Amino acid sequence: VEAGNSAGETIGSLGEFGLIRALAARMPAGPATSLGIGDDSAVVGTPSGSVVAAVDMVIEGRHFRREWSSGTDVGVKAAARSLADIAAMGAKPTALLVALAAPGSLPAAWALELADGLAQEASRAGAGIVGGDTASAQFVVLSVTALGDLAGVSPVLRSGARSGDTVAVAGTLGRSAAGLALLTAGIGPTAGASLTAGAADLGPLVEAHLRPAPPYEAGPEAARLGATAMIDVSDGLLADLRHVAHASGVTIGISSGCLASFADDSLEKAARTLSSRTPSGSSSPLPWILAGGEDHALVATFPPSAELPAHWRVIGEVQAADAGSPGNVTVDGRSWNSESGWEHFR
Amino acid sequence: VEAGNSAGETIGSLGEFGLIRALAARMPAGPATSLGIGDDSAVVGTPSGSVVAAVDMVIEGRHFRREWSSGTDVGVKAAARSLADIAAMGAKPTALLVALAAPGSLPAAWALELADGLAQEASRAGAGIVGGDTASAQFVVLSVTALGDLAGVSPVLRSGARSGDTVAVAGTLGRSAAGLALLTAGIGPTAGASLTAGAADLGPLVEAHLRPAPPYEAGPEAARLGATAMIDVSDGLLADLRHVAHASGVTIGISSGCLASFADDSLEKAARTLSSRTPSGSSSPLPWILAGGEDHALVATFPPSAELPAHWRVIGEVQAADAGSPGNVTVDGRSWNSESGWEHFR
Repeated sequence: VEAGNSAGETIGSLGEFGLIRALAARMPAGPATSLGIGDDSAVVGTPSGSVVAAVDMVIEGRHFRREWSSGTDVGVKAAARSLADIAAMGAKPTALLVALAAPGSLPAAWALELADGLAQEASRAGAGIVGGDTASAQFVVLSVTALGDLAGVSPVLRSGARSGDTVAVAGTLGRSAAGLALLTAGIGPTAGASLTAGAADLGPLVEAHLRPAPPYEAGPEAARLGATAMIDVSDGLLADLRHVAHASGVTIGISSGCLASFADDSLEKAARTLSSRTPSGSSSPLPWILAGGEDHALVATFPPSAELPAHWRVIGEVQAADAGSPGNVTVDGRSWNSESGWEHFR
Repeated sequence: VEAGNSAGETIGSLGEFGLIRALAARMPAGPATSLGIGDDSAVVGTPSGSVVAAVDMVIEGRHFRREWSSGTDVGVKAAARSLADIAAMGAKPTALLVALAAPGSLPAAWALELADGLAQEASRAGAGIVGGDTASAQFVVLSVTALGDLAGVSPVLRSGARSGDTVAVAGTLGRSAAGLALLTAGIGPTAGASLTAGAADLGPLVEAHLRPAPPYEAGPEAARLGATAMIDVSDGLLADLRHVAHASGVTIGISSGCLASFADDSLEKAARTLSSRTPSGSSSPLPWILAGGEDHALVATFPPSAELPAHWRVIGEVQAADAGSPGNVTVDGRSWNSESGWEHFR
């Protein structure tokens, strides 16, 4: 089955085994794979003597809409979410297992695009796709398990941050949230259509929402640089740093000045464009940078002596825990919370 | 949150983090687990230098009904399906990762029972539960990834059966299918209710459908005994043997006489009971034994010299491939197919 000549064909008409064959043909084997798709289980090499594993779900209507996302977009996003969890341990992704439930009426071409998106992102991370399951459901549900290898480093946990450590980010912040805000405001594009005239330079933000691009190699790199704690930014920088602060028993202080480099021209323009349409909207991209999730940047803490390459941007410092307020995250010395936080930055 | 005092509470009222905490508290860590639930990923030991991995989905309305299955039943079944795939490679299960999507209105007690069922079956297999994800959906979707270790044996593939090999089964056949037929015929019980009077001795068949009990230890045992091919019976003995026959390029011949030991008194009684109600029903349990899936027995091929313990019941022999019909499975020398097969055995 080729995406190009399957007009009108659905996964129901392909049948379960036809679907599995068509999907499997598009999946990369991966260099660590001893036994891939086709038996009861896969076998994947773990030279370090342990396997790093995480699972993540993507559900139609909750995590994506088919009118906004192509099958490829959904495949990339589903793979990226799980692969980023492997990188956030300091590990190198090796393999994905994909469970897909979908209605029989799903166009076969969409399912093949989905496979292409999964394959594309797995390959970018150096991983194969080694197993899967398919089932019938009323809407699309994807569950992706990612496996990885530590390649000689110790796993970087959330609990290792120490007072005096440097906080740094690899990857982008706020771009996925800005892209979602643009889509929600109808600035588009819907799948396949163009952006509203005059907003073409905002396209990369929409793409960042539809197809996140976590910096996988920065994960093992951080481990080699001595990172004391690490997490991937899936819920938002402050929300995820709060997990690190809690697990480590520290306060994490962020400087808004250090976040300026994340606010490029397109983010500034998106904030201005949207605030002119919605009176309550912020004209600054800072709320997106602080609270927007799904870019899947990596944020890590490093000993002060660590020499960080430029793509690890320093954003703050780990401090001793506040008495009575363990796990606090501050911005310019002030506490931030999800209710009033947005107001502080307007 | 305790199952006993959460009347009226739903997973929506628990909230995502409350639900995760309540579920995680019920999960066994597992002896191979270096890092369990709570960070971006888990870390699980793989002393043999590779990991065996499989994923399987269980969906409400497709694989179970909440009026027939308790939360515990669904947890056991979901875990068993994936764990059996690990055993079918000859590997020892080490860990599960569980993705759960469910409606916010799901009773919290049901979700906790689900966790108990997953925990119970994982423990029976010697595995921990090391990671998960939760999401909101209109019905319950469970995706379970199982990991395992080969502990020094080579993986037993579907493709290694050779002419002259002995075919043998560990575990039960046909009991799950009989239990489903009883439930479908209204002989019950619905969840929590009793079986129809006079049918109490059929209860174990219903239980076999609701809570399959694969013989996990027989998987690594088969590998040590020199098994040349193995698969778990999830779609039905003949359907799954056909996968082995195809992958190995052989014919597999089953003897119906050898299957007699699978037809115990309860299976015979269930077949008689149901055939008296539905004129077209078979009065023999043989169709269930040959075509019923979901007991998750293990069926393996062994060199003729292998000395098999009694719990590996011999059912037939591997033969050279039929010319023009590779991958054939015969019963008493006759071809069987899913359309006419049932007729042959009535």
